[in-house]
Amino acid sequence: MAKDKGQRRPKAETPKGFRDYFAHEVGARKTMLDKIAAVYHRYGFDALETSAVETVEALGKFLPDVDRPNEGVFAWEEEGDWLALRYDLTAPLARVAAQYRNDLPSPYRRYAMGPVWRNEKPGPGRFRQFYQCDADTVGAASVAADAEICAMLSDALEEVGIARGDYVIRVNNRKVLNGVMEVAGILDPADPSRFEAERGIVLRAIDKLDRLGVDGVRALLGEGRKDASGDFTKGAGLTSAQCTVIMRFVTANQTVSSILSAQVDAAVEVSKQYASTLVHAAGGDSKSGRARNIRNKATVHHLRDIVGGSEVGEEGVAELEEIAALLDAQGYGPDRIIIDPSVVRGLGYYTGPVFEAELTFEITDEKGRPRQFGSVAGGGRYDDLVKRFTGQAVPATGVSIGVDRLLAALAAKGRGTPEAQGPVVVTVMDRTRMAEYMGMVSTLRAAGIRAEMYLGNPKNFGNQLKYADKRQSPVAIIQGEDEAARGVVQVKDLILGAKLAQEASLEEWKAQPAQVEVPLAELVQTVRAIMGRHG
Amino acid sequence: MAKDKGQRRPKAETPKGFRDYFAHEVGARKTMLDKIAAVYHRYGFDALETSAVETVEALGKFLPDVDRPNEGVFAWEEEGDWLALRYDLTAPLARVAAQYRNDLPSPYRRYAMGPVWRNEKPGPGRFRQFYQCDADTVGAASVAADAEICAMLSDALEEVGIARGDYVIRVNNRKVLNGVMEVAGILDPADPSRFEAERGIVLRAIDKLDRLGVDGVRALLGEGRKDASGDFTKGAGLTSAQCTVIMRFVTANQTVSSILSAQVDAAVEVSKQYASTLVHAAGGDSKSGRARNIRNKATVHHLRDIVGGSEVGEEGVAELEEIAALLDAQGYGPDRIIIDPSVVRGLGYYTGPVFEAELTFEITDEKGRPRQFGSVAGGGRYDDLVKRFTGQAVPATGVSIGVDRLLAALAAKGRGTPEAQGPVVVTVMDRTRMAEYMGMVSTLRAAGIRAEMYLGNPKNFGNQLKYADKRQSPVAIIQGEDEAARGVVQVKDLILGAKLAQEASLEEWKAQPAQVEVPLAELVQTVRAIMGRHG
Repeated sequence: MAKDKGQRRPKAETPKGFRDYFAHEVGARKTMLDKIAAVYHRYGFDALETSAVETVEALGKFLPDVDRPNEGVFAWEEEGDWLALRYDLTAPLARVAAQYRNDLPSPYRRYAMGPVWRNEKPGPGRFRQFYQCDADTVGAASVAADAEICAMLSDALEEVGIARGDYVIRVNNRKVLNGVMEVAGILDPADPSRFEAERGIVLRAIDKLDRLGVDGVRALLGEGRKDASGDFTKGAGLTSAQCTVIMRFVTANQTVSSILSAQVDAAVEVSKQYASTLVHAAGGDSKSGRARNIRNKATVHHLRDIVGGSEVGEEGVAELEEIAALLDAQGYGPDRIIIDPSVVRGLGYYTGPVFEAELTFEITDEKGRPRQFGSVAGGGRYDDLVKRFTGQAVPATGVSIGVDRLLAALAAKGRGTPEAQGPVVVTVMDRTRMAEYMGMVSTLRAAGIRAEMYLGNPKNFGNQLKYADKRQSPVAIIQGEDEAARGVVQVKDLILGAKLAQEASLEEWKAQPAQVEVPLAELVQTVRAIMGRHG
Repeated sequence: MAKDKGQRRPKAETPKGFRDYFAHEVGARKTMLDKIAAVYHRYGFDALETSAVETVEALGKFLPDVDRPNEGVFAWEEEGDWLALRYDLTAPLARVAAQYRNDLPSPYRRYAMGPVWRNEKPGPGRFRQFYQCDADTVGAASVAADAEICAMLSDALEEVGIARGDYVIRVNNRKVLNGVMEVAGILDPADPSRFEAERGIVLRAIDKLDRLGVDGVRALLGEGRKDASGDFTKGAGLTSAQCTVIMRFVTANQTVSSILSAQVDAAVEVSKQYASTLVHAAGGDSKSGRARNIRNKATVHHLRDIVGGSEVGEEGVAELEEIAALLDAQGYGPDRIIIDPSVVRGLGYYTGPVFEAELTFEITDEKGRPRQFGSVAGGGRYDDLVKRFTGQAVPATGVSIGVDRLLAALAAKGRGTPEAQGPVVVTVMDRTRMAEYMGMVSTLRAAGIRAEMYLGNPKNFGNQLKYADKRQSPVAIIQGEDEAARGVVQVKDLILGAKLAQEASLEEWKAQPAQVEVPLAELVQTVRAIMGRHG
């Protein structure tokens, strides 16, 4: 109709920053999340699914890396109430823990998996809806809860296919960090709001250790830093002595490593046997109880020295020591979990132990340069989130796995879920005999074989085979008038056919035909045999 | 702090009409959806997961039962674009089919499972976020696609635990309905917009057959109907002859049933053998090919008589006949799928076959009265939804399962997923020995047993057992100083313990102790034995 031509049609597009997930993407994510859920379940965690929509009031303003209130969320007004899409799975948990506090077991271990939404500028690989996969324990003050989360995270990573040695979980404690700040004279326990700006700069500087190195971080702690382009970033203005305290803390992990290595060198002279234990401790790849203990114990010792005199700092070190001991008792040593003071974690709400899972293998970035894969999960203790609602402090700790990053890591390691096989396609040679073709499909399905009849216009037979190709079908079934009269079907091995078409000589082609004729009664067994051949 | 007291705390509440799903609810839904997905997959359907957010423009205004534009969706403005939460899974599919039309296989069979959002007045059991579970075939004009959807729906219902005989899938065709309207003189193919108001009243009246009965519907077709309270609803104002045509159609199914029953009575005189076939046909509970055919064939015959002379009506009847034949060839007879002209389906966008799955067993409603469970799934052919985007007609058909209703049905039939067992709880008798308790937990988990250490304050041991009770733990592990010194643990069978506490005599109590002491090395095998005893 000509008059329709000028009419504006709606655009067939996702909104900016949103995307669709197709068959294999949905399947790979589901397989991974099912495996993680099984680990969480084994640890005694229960599933919880809250709704996507919360009141803005209940969500609060805990979005990381966002300064302005209500920035970063999708929100709208509904009959006087402001509603919003959840930006993470922790804020809804805090609401649930408060709402059902009289009914839930305490401690309450729960896991949650689902999409969250961020109203941020989308970029390459950065979407405004993405999956999170969290586990939290609410109501447990003991650091045994933190240790358990770390062990569970380790098990989950191995369960989905990240091999031991390809990841490490780094544990730190905000209290140790506060102790260091106190020792450096930029935290006054009597007036926590003093020096807040300085501490902010220090935290951001520590977070950049990977990128800027020791000298860069130190410059940011002091006067400031000029980058390669000549741009100047103002520093925290700490004195040289203050900088030294902070930098001892930041580099504690390297220091411990070199001490252990030096010990190893010395020990080689004494005893090959003892040395091998220490080598493992330094490298962190041994399963022996002895070796495990050394590294984390050395770190604890070193940290205690740094925060000496700060009450909160010493409390934090004692917690780290207890976490390491508890993990050790379960066999989780520094080959999997290490104490590492350089882990800061951005979120303002952490109050105690913080942890981060990092993948240690190299991948090639978009510019072809090798780089470490980096962080795939993180979490920590947040003792004040539930208090917002109830006025009563409720200790809580948890972890969040970045689902898309972990999926990307598995794909990079070739450990992703293989694509599901396409269906067997029963082609339509004669459209008056659709019922018979449907019957064949039905027989195949009843035998547990994924199958379908070609439902497009059957006129062009070539299109049917092209369709089967697009579906990655392993087998096509063909039955024309002639075959029907004789009670047989043609069974075409599409995988072999594609291979032969590419590389076979005429002799090979003849010796191993990609298409066989069998009685209709042998349809299922023939299809099964072909599919079995290709695994 | 006294000054905090007056401060307003956020309310720990879900927004109105939203709810949370806890462990068992999440698990039961997941189990059901996994089973349905396996059926869909076997039928050759691929998963698709679109984002929750779409542009308002792409969603369009196809929300059922809503008259005002943009009513019924949650929408907000974002930098000049209007965004909204999807209200079903069909509108996003139409967008995807248009957006990726050059990449997707055609026909495109896809399934989707996930939450949808409706901005409607919430009520008891009516929520503003709920799950749908859809399967659709886009790009197949053949009614073989509709037949396949019906067969797949039948398989899915049986797979999740609805027994054959407890459900029926009713199939009708919008074209037949249009044919009847044409014969009754309220549809003019040359000017489809004439009599639109009358047709609306007729459709709504037919939809109320269950509630108002034959006389009520007939009254609404004519002058109108006065209900028990005296309120008068204006009718469509059809003549008596017009009403008769419509009512013949509406009651076609009953007519066919009585004809078949009458035939049975007559046949009893002739042949017990033949009669039994017809009894099955009338009752629809036979698997014999002969019986299957009769009922749907009789309905088709009767409908052809009613729409005689209307081209579209005859086309619709021919389609129903073909669907019945295709289903019959796969063994799906009227014990599972019947042609039933009383199925109308509200959605404006259906253009051909429509279907509805109804559960036929009785449940007790909230007032204690028995009633049929009713509809749990529905769908049909909608050939114009993709055209909105591309201008080209794309035939499509599909079904949507009401996830919550089907879950409720399974629970009502006692066929729901059993609750997952709680974890084994290792209690904390001595808080200096947490590492040892954690080690026991770790050993149990490594053996695949769901287990946890009590993470609350261990001071009050009674609280620990109360916690285990709340978690529905099968077993508690206890090790005090004394047991630790002797290298043993107490293993407490909590299920047996609860049973004995309720009903056992002292002798029974002594004969079968609910608590045994075993060497630590026998922890796993002892726990396994107890759990095995309770299945």
